[in-house]
Amino acid sequence: MCRWLAYSGSPIPLEDVLYKPDHSLIDQSMHSRMGVETTNADGFGVGWYGGGQVVPARYRSVGPAWSDRNMREIAGHVTSPLFLAHIRASTGTAVQQTNCHPFRHGRWMWVHNGSIREFSKIKRDLILAVDPALFAGIGGETDSEVMLYLALTFGLEDDPPAAVERMVWLVEDVGRRHGIEHPIQMTVGTTDGQSIWAFRYSSEHQSRTLFYSSAVRGLRQLYPDNPVIQRVSDETRLVVSEPLGDLPGVWNEVPESSYGVVQKGDDTLERFRPREP
Amino acid sequence: MCRWLAYSGSPIPLEDVLYKPDHSLIDQSMHSRMGVETTNADGFGVGWYGGGQVVPARYRSVGPAWSDRNMREIAGHVTSPLFLAHIRASTGTAVQQTNCHPFRHGRWMWVHNGSIREFSKIKRDLILAVDPALFAGIGGETDSEVMLYLALTFGLEDDPPAAVERMVWLVEDVGRRHGIEHPIQMTVGTTDGQSIWAFRYSSEHQSRTLFYSSAVRGLRQLYPDNPVIQRVSDETRLVVSEPLGDLPGVWNEVPESSYGVVQKGDDTLERFRPREP
Amino acid sequence: MCRWLAYSGSPIPLEDVLYKPDHSLIDQSMHSRMGVETTNADGFGVGWYGGGQVVPARYRSVGPAWSDRNMREIAGHVTSPLFLAHIRASTGTAVQQTNCHPFRHGRWMWVHNGSIREFSKIKRDLILAVDPALFAGIGGETDSEVMLYLALTFGLEDDPPAAVERMVWLVEDVGRRHGIEHPIQMTVGTTDGQSIWAFRYSSEHQSRTLFYSSAVRGLRQLYPDNPVIQRVSDETRLVVSEPLGDLPGVWNEVPESSYGVVQKGDDTLERFRPREP
Amino acid sequence: MCRWLAYSGSPIPLEDVLYKPDHSLIDQSMHSRMGVETTNADGFGVGWYGGGQVVPARYRSVGPAWSDRNMREIAGHVTSPLFLAHIRASTGTAVQQTNCHPFRHGRWMWVHNGSIREFSKIKRDLILAVDPALFAGIGGETDSEVMLYLALTFGLEDDPPAAVERMVWLVEDVGRRHGIEHPIQMTVGTTDGQSIWAFRYSSEHQSRTLFYSSAVRGLRQLYPDNPVIQRVSDETRLVVSEPLGDLPGVWNEVPESSYGVVQKGDDTLERFRPREP
Repeated sequence: MCRWLAYSGSPIPLEDVLYKPDHSLIDQSMHSRMGVETTNADGFGVGWYGGGQVVPARYRSVGPAWSDRNMREIAGHVTSPLFLAHIRASTGTAVQQTNCHPFRHGRWMWVHNGSIREFSKIKRDLILAVDPALFAGIGGETDSEVMLYLALTFGLEDDPPAAVERMVWLVEDVGRRHGIEHPIQMTVGTTDGQSIWAFRYSSEHQSRTLFYSSAVRGLRQLYPDNPVIQRVSDETRLVVSEPLGDLPGVWNEVPESSYGVVQKGDDTLERFRPREP
Repeated sequence: MCRWLAYSGSPIPLEDVLYKPDHSLIDQSMHSRMGVETTNADGFGVGWYGGGQVVPARYRSVGPAWSDRNMREIAGHVTSPLFLAHIRASTGTAVQQTNCHPFRHGRWMWVHNGSIREFSKIKRDLILAVDPALFAGIGGETDSEVMLYLALTFGLEDDPPAAVERMVWLVEDVGRRHGIEHPIQMTVGTTDGQSIWAFRYSSEHQSRTLFYSSAVRGLRQLYPDNPVIQRVSDETRLVVSEPLGDLPGVWNEVPESSYGVVQKGDDTLERFRPREP
Repeated sequence: MCRWLAYSGSPIPLEDVLYKPDHSLIDQSMHSRMGVETTNADGFGVGWYGGGQVVPARYRSVGPAWSDRNMREIAGHVTSPLFLAHIRASTGTAVQQTNCHPFRHGRWMWVHNGSIREFSKIKRDLILAVDPALFAGIGGETDSEVMLYLALTFGLEDDPPAAVERMVWLVEDVGRRHGIEHPIQMTVGTTDGQSIWAFRYSSEHQSRTLFYSSAVRGLRQLYPDNPVIQRVSDETRLVVSEPLGDLPGVWNEVPESSYGVVQKGDDTLERFRPREP
Repeated sequence: MCRWLAYSGSPIPLEDVLYKPDHSLIDQSMHSRMGVETTNADGFGVGWYGGGQVVPARYRSVGPAWSDRNMREIAGHVTSPLFLAHIRASTGTAVQQTNCHPFRHGRWMWVHNGSIREFSKIKRDLILAVDPALFAGIGGETDSEVMLYLALTFGLEDDPPAAVERMVWLVEDVGRRHGIEHPIQMTVGTTDGQSIWAFRYSSEHQSRTLFYSSAVRGLRQLYPDNPVIQRVSDETRLVVSEPLGDLPGVWNEVPESSYGVVQKGDDTLERFRPREP
C-alpha cells in the first residue's frame, strides 16, 4: 500500500501541494485514511520537470517523509509545472532508495499503488518478458518497477494505455498460470513530462481509490475566496490516491477499471481493458 | 510520545519480547494503542547487558523499527538477562542516532516517554545546571538526555529515586519561572544492569501509561499452558509503556506519581515526590 | 578536516562546479590532495540562493558525497548565482545531518574547515557566551556551528569581519585559560546571499589552505578556448579549500591570517586580527 | 574493489580482529594499501556464528565502517568462533544494504572482492542460469550475489570447490560469448559455519591479493610475548584481502589460481580450475 499524487498546471512550489493542504500527502505518510495501511513510512520520492530539461529530477529517500528535512527544503524552493510524488508502504521488499518511486526511464516517470500478488513466485517469468535491451535498467526489486519495464517493453513511449493494458494482461496471464486468483491490484500514474496517464484497475475489480480534481473553471465559482484556486491556470489538474483538503466538489473518483489522461486540450476518461500483447 | 520496555529475569533472546508477542513493541512502532501519537517511527534503540561486561551494548537506528533488518538479526541472536528498548516519536528534534534512546552513562541506561514542555525556552538554563564535569557527555539535543544528565548531577548513581525527584523539582522550578504551567510529563526507566527503576509522573498528574508484569508465580497458575511463562524464573519482570499481548491478569498499572523498583528480592512500589536538590 | 567551496557569479548548474571539473569537490570527498585527511566522507552539504527567496535552500546528507544519488540529481537540475558546498571529515562528533555544513541562520550560511582544539573541554564555556536569544538555534554538536553562533552573537549580520575576529579572540582566550596552546584552526566561508567573506586563520599561524580564483577578465585571455571561462560574467569568483582542475594562473592563495570579500564592485583582501569583543 | 576477512578459531570478541590490530579492516575502510581503490566506504557487513544457532547473524550497513557506532558496539560485545567481514567499494551499483556482503543462504555466507566485468551486459544471461527455485532469494543487484546463487545452483552446499569452479566456468563462457576478454576477477570467501573456503582467481591470472595466517604453533615461537597469539587455539586461522598488523612471518599469500580450506584437521591448499557444469 502506498499513496501517490500527480500535478500538472501552473508552475507552483512543490510544497503548495505536498505540505500545505490539510491532509496533504506528507500528512498521509503518517495517517492516511483510505489506505489498507494507514502508515506509509517505508520511503518516498518526488520527481519534477522544469528548468528546460527533458529528463525530470528526482529526490528519493528511505525514511518517513514527515521527518525528512531535505524534502522540506526542496519542496520550498523548487517550482514545477508537472510533478509526481509517492509515499511507500512496503509489502516486504527492502526499504531502500532503488525501491522508491517514481521510477524513471529517460523522460518517463512511473508511480504505483498496489501489488502483484505472490510476486516472488512469478518474478522470474515476468522479468524474462522484459525486453533484454531494457533489462539492465531495472535497479530495484519491486513489482512496481517490473511493471514499468514490462510497459516499456510493450510500447509505453508510443501508446501508454495500450502498453499498460498489455502489461496487465501478461501479469494476469502469468499469475493465473501459477494459480494466483487475482494477480494484480493497481493504481498507476505515468508521465512523459507533457501528459499524465492515471490507471485504476485490479483483477478482482475492487481497486485502490483514485481521484482527480474538478476543472478549475468550475472550482473558481465554487470557491471565489480560495487564493490558490483563483491563481492557477484553467488546465491545472491533480490526480491523487486520496483527496487532499476537505473542499466539497473538488474531487471526483476515477471509476473502476478505467484510466484518465491529463493533457493539453480536453482531459479524457476511458475504460481499461487488459489486452494480449 | 514514545513507547519503551524494560526486561529483567531469565536470559532470553531479545526477540521473545521485542517481536514475538501479539502487539509487541515492534508492532507498536507502527500502531500503538495508548499513545498520544499512534506512530513511533522516528528512530529506536535497544541496550542490553551480558557477556560478562559491565557497560551495556547498544543498537540505535533512525528508521522505523518495523523495517530494520539489523534489529531483527540482533534480536534473534542476542540473549540477555536485562535490557531496555525504546521506539521514538519525535516532538520536533531531529531524527538522528544521538537523539535515540536508551541514553547511556557508564553502566547506566535511561529511557523516557513524554517531554519537557517548551524545552527550547528553558534548555539553556537546564544544561547550565548539569555538572560541568558531565557536560561533555551530552551527545544529542533531546529533553530526555538532559533529564538523564541532570539526574546524574543529582546523584543517580547513588540514589536513583532521590536523584530523579531532584531532577523533576528543578525542571518544574525552572519551567514555572518561565511561565510554563505543566513543565514535565514522563515515564522514565533507568537501570545499572542490576535493578530497574521505573517512574511515572507529570506536573499535571495525568501521566503517560506505565505497566509492570505480575509475579511469575501467580502467572504460572493462571496460564499453565503458556511455555514462556512456565519457563522464565520467578524473578522475571517486564515494565512497559503499554501491555504486550492480551493476557488478562498479566499487567498492572504503575499508579500516578509513583515509581517501582525491579531488583533482587522483593520489588517495591513507592510514591514519587519532586524534592529540592 | 574538511573541504569547502563558495561560488558567486553567473547563475550556473551546481554540477558545473561540484562534479564536472577535474579534481572537483566531489572527487575530493574521496581523494583530496592537500587535506590532513585525504578522505572527506563523513557527510556533506550544499546551500544555494535563488528563486526569488531570501533564505537559501540546503541539501545535507550523511553518507559520502561521491555515492549520493540525490546530490547528483539536485546538482544537475538546480541553477544558482551563489552557493556554498562542504564535504566533511569528522574529528570525532557523530556523522549526522545536524553536524553537516553549511550551517544556516536566516539568510546567512557558514562553512568551516579546521577545528577548535580540545573542544569538549571548552564547549560549555563557549556556548555560555552565545546570546541566550540565539541559543535554541544550535542544532548539532560541532565546534563549527558554535563558531557561527558566537559570530552571530558578536554582530555577524552587521559587520562580518569584526564579528569573526571577536569570535576568534574569545575562542583563543577561553582556550588559553584552559591551557590549550593553539585553540583554533580555521578557514571559514560565510555569506548573506550577496557577498562572500572567506577567512584564513589559525592560532599557530599555519592555517589550512584556501584559494580564490583570478579575475575572469584575465582568465579569458589566458584560456581563450575554455567555454566556461568565456561564458561566465566578469564578477564570477570561486573560493576553495583546494584548487579544482589543473589550470595554471587560475588560483591564488589567500594569505595567512587574512580574509577576502567577494562582493559587488571590487573584491578585497584584508589582514585578519582577533579582537576583544 | 573491496576488502574482506574470515576468522576461524578460539571464540574472540569481533573487535580483536576488526578494530584492534594496526591496519585493521576498519582502518582499511579509509586507507587500504593494496586495493585498486584505497577507500572502501560504500557499505560494509559482518556475519557471525554462535549462540547455538546454525544460521549466522548479520549486521550490514551503508555508511563507511569507520564511523558506524553500531558496528563498534557489536564488535565489542559479540564473541564468535567463526565470522566474515567485508568493506565495500562499489563499482557502480547502489550503496544499499541488499548490496552489502556477506550474502547469506541458510547456514552459508559469501564475500567477494573483484567483479564480473561488463556485468550489466551479461547479468540477464547469468540470472537465467540460476536455479528457478533459488531465484527469489536474490535480494540485491550485485555481481557478487549472482555469483553466490550460481554457485548454489552448481552444488555449493555439497562440494564448494567444484561449485565455484563451475560458476566461474559459466561466467567466463557467457562473458566470452559477449566479447568480454577477462570476464571475472575475484577473491571469494565462503563458509557453512564449520569450514572456510577461500578462492583466488581471475580470467587474466592477475588476481586480487589474498593472504592466510601461519599456523599458530609456529607463531608462538616467533612471538613469545604477543598475548593474542599465545592465547588463541592451534587451529585459529585468518584469511584476509590484505595483511593486518606488521608482524613478519604471520602472513602467506594464497597463490594465483588456487583455493584454501580452513577446517577441522589440516588445512589444505589446492589449484583452482574452472570446469564445465
